[in-house]
Amino acid sequence: MTEVVTEKKLSDSATVDAASIKPFPGSKKIFVQGSQADILVPMREISLADTAMELGAEKNPPVRVYDTSGPYTDENIVIDLRKGLAEMRRNWIDARLDTEYLNEKSSLFANQRARDEALDRLRFNHKRKIRRALAGKNVTQMHYAKQGIITPEMEYIAIRENMSLQQARAQGVLEQQHQGMDFGANIPDEITPEFVRSEVARGRAIIPANINHPELEPMIIGRNFLVKVNGNIGNSALGSSIEEEVEKLTWGTRWGADTIMDLSTGKNIHETREWIIRNSHVPIGTVPIYQALEKVNGVAEDLSWEIFRDTLIEQAEQGVDYFTIHAGVLLRYVPLTAKRVTGIVSRGGSIMAKWCLAHHKENFLYTHFEDICEIMKAYDVSFSLGDGLRPGSVADANDAAQFGELETLGELTKIAWKHDIQTMIEGPGHVPMHLIKENMDKQLRECGEAPFYTLGPLTTDIAPGYDHITSGIGAAMIAWYGCAMLCYVTPKEHLGLPNKDDVKVGIITYKIAAHAADLAKGHPGSQLRDNALSKARFEFRWEDQFNLGLDSDTARSFHDETLPKESAKVAHFCSMCGPKFCSMKITQEVREYAANLGADLSAELGEALGEESVVRMVDVEAEMATKAAEFRAQGTKLYSKV
Amino acid sequence: MTEVVTEKKLSDSATVDAASIKPFPGSKKIFVQGSQADILVPMREISLADTAMELGAEKNPPVRVYDTSGPYTDENIVIDLRKGLAEMRRNWIDARLDTEYLNEKSSLFANQRARDEALDRLRFNHKRKIRRALAGKNVTQMHYAKQGIITPEMEYIAIRENMSLQQARAQGVLEQQHQGMDFGANIPDEITPEFVRSEVARGRAIIPANINHPELEPMIIGRNFLVKVNGNIGNSALGSSIEEEVEKLTWGTRWGADTIMDLSTGKNIHETREWIIRNSHVPIGTVPIYQALEKVNGVAEDLSWEIFRDTLIEQAEQGVDYFTIHAGVLLRYVPLTAKRVTGIVSRGGSIMAKWCLAHHKENFLYTHFEDICEIMKAYDVSFSLGDGLRPGSVADANDAAQFGELETLGELTKIAWKHDIQTMIEGPGHVPMHLIKENMDKQLRECGEAPFYTLGPLTTDIAPGYDHITSGIGAAMIAWYGCAMLCYVTPKEHLGLPNKDDVKVGIITYKIAAHAADLAKGHPGSQLRDNALSKARFEFRWEDQFNLGLDSDTARSFHDETLPKESAKVAHFCSMCGPKFCSMKITQEVREYAANLGADLSAELGEALGEESVVRMVDVEAEMATKAAEFRAQGTKLYSKV
Repeated sequence: MTEVVTEKKLSDSATVDAASIKPFPGSKKIFVQGSQADILVPMREISLADTAMELGAEKNPPVRVYDTSGPYTDENIVIDLRKGLAEMRRNWIDARLDTEYLNEKSSLFANQRARDEALDRLRFNHKRKIRRALAGKNVTQMHYAKQGIITPEMEYIAIRENMSLQQARAQGVLEQQHQGMDFGANIPDEITPEFVRSEVARGRAIIPANINHPELEPMIIGRNFLVKVNGNIGNSALGSSIEEEVEKLTWGTRWGADTIMDLSTGKNIHETREWIIRNSHVPIGTVPIYQALEKVNGVAEDLSWEIFRDTLIEQAEQGVDYFTIHAGVLLRYVPLTAKRVTGIVSRGGSIMAKWCLAHHKENFLYTHFEDICEIMKAYDVSFSLGDGLRPGSVADANDAAQFGELETLGELTKIAWKHDIQTMIEGPGHVPMHLIKENMDKQLRECGEAPFYTLGPLTTDIAPGYDHITSGIGAAMIAWYGCAMLCYVTPKEHLGLPNKDDVKVGIITYKIAAHAADLAKGHPGSQLRDNALSKARFEFRWEDQFNLGLDSDTARSFHDETLPKESAKVAHFCSMCGPKFCSMKITQEVREYAANLGADLSAELGEALGEESVVRMVDVEAEMATKAAEFRAQGTKLYSKV
Repeated sequence: MTEVVTEKKLSDSATVDAASIKPFPGSKKIFVQGSQADILVPMREISLADTAMELGAEKNPPVRVYDTSGPYTDENIVIDLRKGLAEMRRNWIDARLDTEYLNEKSSLFANQRARDEALDRLRFNHKRKIRRALAGKNVTQMHYAKQGIITPEMEYIAIRENMSLQQARAQGVLEQQHQGMDFGANIPDEITPEFVRSEVARGRAIIPANINHPELEPMIIGRNFLVKVNGNIGNSALGSSIEEEVEKLTWGTRWGADTIMDLSTGKNIHETREWIIRNSHVPIGTVPIYQALEKVNGVAEDLSWEIFRDTLIEQAEQGVDYFTIHAGVLLRYVPLTAKRVTGIVSRGGSIMAKWCLAHHKENFLYTHFEDICEIMKAYDVSFSLGDGLRPGSVADANDAAQFGELETLGELTKIAWKHDIQTMIEGPGHVPMHLIKENMDKQLRECGEAPFYTLGPLTTDIAPGYDHITSGIGAAMIAWYGCAMLCYVTPKEHLGLPNKDDVKVGIITYKIAAHAADLAKGHPGSQLRDNALSKARFEFRWEDQFNLGLDSDTARSFHDETLPKESAKVAHFCSMCGPKFCSMKITQEVREYAANLGADLSAELGEALGEESVVRMVDVEAEMATKAAEFRAQGTKLYSKV
């Protein structure tokens, strides 16, 4: 008797990861509406406790932070991965009247996959109609921007980017921030929809938003906006499954990824991608040459323009928002890598180098570049011009191969802009600190200020296992100098495929780098979160301190390792120093003491110190006198009961 | 019937932590001898496998790295914590004929503790005689240096610091390093004992080496030497024991701590410290005001110069190598902290501020500064002039309180140098990236280039749980700008007392920051380790890659998570991309291919590309022709069997 085994369909079991949808403590999702009812921009609002009575009893306004976690943390939405997310942008795209729905997919490969019944159990089953530009129409955000049109996407983005500045102004604390140093960026006092439009029109920013990805929450990548972070997911021949990859998406965006790249090189790349895009509220990037290589069974010499072209269309019709294209790996640059310590470390770059040498021909991505543009503009896919010749070791940094390619990418940017294709430029790699600025300055010059999107850079090679840190240093610096988006690096870099924990650590590290850069650039309102957290710390509002942090779970659990009881959350000390030695506790005693001295202060100290010091003291004295009066009015009890 | 309970003595159970003494894989400890038989400088030598036949079959010379792990990783030494380490420097100190042995301790408190039988079970029992300078003698390294004397300590240090440069020269690779950018430092081509002497004489470097700490392996802190890292240990009222603290010492130095500060604020500070120093091969720093505060039961107002003086002597006679002294917290600066977001975050700073206000008097550490100098010079204890008013939040960075104190520290440095006391200056704190350089430049100006020793700085406040990273960014930058030593920060910063894992992660993060700075400064030979590791990576010598890293255990285990078999250690791929997509594997194929083209290359490509490109190709062609010949001679098989 033969057994009939019914294979379980993936779509029967697709549940969203519980950890990814857990609400953030102390927070709620709010929406700010724009000029139309369907422009609703999500933000996270963190509520704070009042300052304790004995410390001044003030109300602490809630803090709004940029929110990349999407519908997954919206308590009003029930997530069903099998259905995908709501098509938020559908009406906006419809209203532009420049696209049509296709009755079938345009890609040969996509049609083959669709007919293969063996793949049924892996398939995302929800039927979706594919869009494409009407003949002769260009549907990129850059095209609209150049025509003076402010799209709903642009308005959405302006609200999103302007959030911190608005709160700071509303709270009257806009000036309570260090003036930054931004090396000639043009960060305005207010991010308006018109400013967004002008940045996109001139190519200094991009809005990755394929017309076939209506589910996404629009975001912008550009030097004059908040620094963004990309997280990578994707299986390989040696690991991972579709469920695991979707989980990494929801997990990565929970912690702050602004875009996600699906770098799968293993099985069922097409089906995996469909699940990811349909459930992604952030832009998705890919490297199409990987799938093209799979189609020729890993034999790089068998790649061709035709196969690649079909792959571009297949992926564009699924909704990929940006493509990494290694069109700058020119035949003449390949020998320049011969003396390198680590040769060509980019997967795409090494694949194209192999093809070039095998065929004795120029890179087909370069020779067919304008053909690629024709495809991109029909769907609004953005370019991420790949740095196939980036340095993979400190020794190779800033060499002729790397810079030669960068010059070619500059040349290609001009061509892309001729077609109104939104374009960003990928960057290194491994670069010691003192050579980082040269990279940024050269890229600005060569590429007409198109956004720069770097992988780190790693500032030393000697710490495998810690490359999120070696690269976090370089990433913070290059973002300060002008880099628009940072591609994260996890602790597993150079060693293996990252798991969920690695993804989180990588994202948090890169959010740190991005925010440190926003502060250094003086991005208006960026210091508000730091100030709120430090104030909470100083006032021993432990829960507020945790909740305002990038990772409240970890902060809370670290604290609880040595002081787990709830009573410790109002304690005016922690286990680092204990109650006698806590400097913050003592500082508050100092202030109380100084306030109580009041008007006597200057007289007594005048004798001790001499006239000059007294002058400085008097300025503060008035404030202290007021505080002293307040304290006396409330009683002088200093601490809450533990 | 009464039970007689014999309390177990700590000294009966004191075993060294096994994990700390495990040999480093692929490594052995070597010693380089100086001009006398007892100048034996330890280094770690990492052996590397030969490059595989098919990749060129070359021998890879062993790599020597600076070794802070001390006798703990010397297979020829049996560690007995109860006996302490060998007194390596004893003869050197004897030979100077300027010290005498005391018959009893000079400190009242120390004598009290010694007589207290209840402490017997905690005491380090090994009898040791205390040294002090003969009357009228000054025994500091700076004093000797100013007299033109090169001490054995200076020679030892020169050998230690010169190691990388020597190997690079020996291997003929000294020029294979990016020229650095060092902002006006004076890093010489060769570190000679005379150079060490001159840096110490002018105060630009210090050699912390108390005459009562003969067990230490001398090291130097200065801008023109390798950037150093300090790790903190120490109990608090809420945690840890003597065994745990000694374990943190051996563990922290295993991973790279150049000095250790014992910041205990809990029980039995005196006894804990004795165990630590007797077993420490690295300089030990303390903050004497902590213990002084314990002696007055945590009531800062009850502190006095007399109690503090006795504490200094007590600790100097135990062998503490440097004291953090908050002599710059002047009464007139305290009100300047009134409007800060986080007030005074330094424990010592807040204690002194409280004392000043309570007594309406100037800080006694300031008023008695020259008395402190008299004590320091009798034992060669170095100053670490404390930054009691450092900023504890981004908002407070670079404010008047912080810079006022820095100016006073500059004034005090001059006084210290009058007494030939070796002096370094402590620094911040929390500083956004764009304000970091100002700190470094001001410190160089105000303090006559005395070494700077910062805590980070943290570049943003928003990531409790990850402050080793927020500060690792700032630390790397300020070290590049000229900071000489970095005080580490662990993931537990702001949240609680760090455990062993936190100590390791903090140390590794700061070794990364220090080395990234050495590279950026162009420290001669510093790139050798990066180059060796990257070469091993490129050639798939996995074990070599792990062993050359700062943490080979973690690198190896991360790799093994997805590819655990031994066969994977010769695999030409890892689980990140798998065999088809591995860029390094493909690059090697590219090189093989290019080499096999040989002389045909220029002819064929000339047609495809035109004359100009061919000119570039020809340069490389000769090399490729040679390689092609080599490959053919060896057979053209590319990969080892997996």
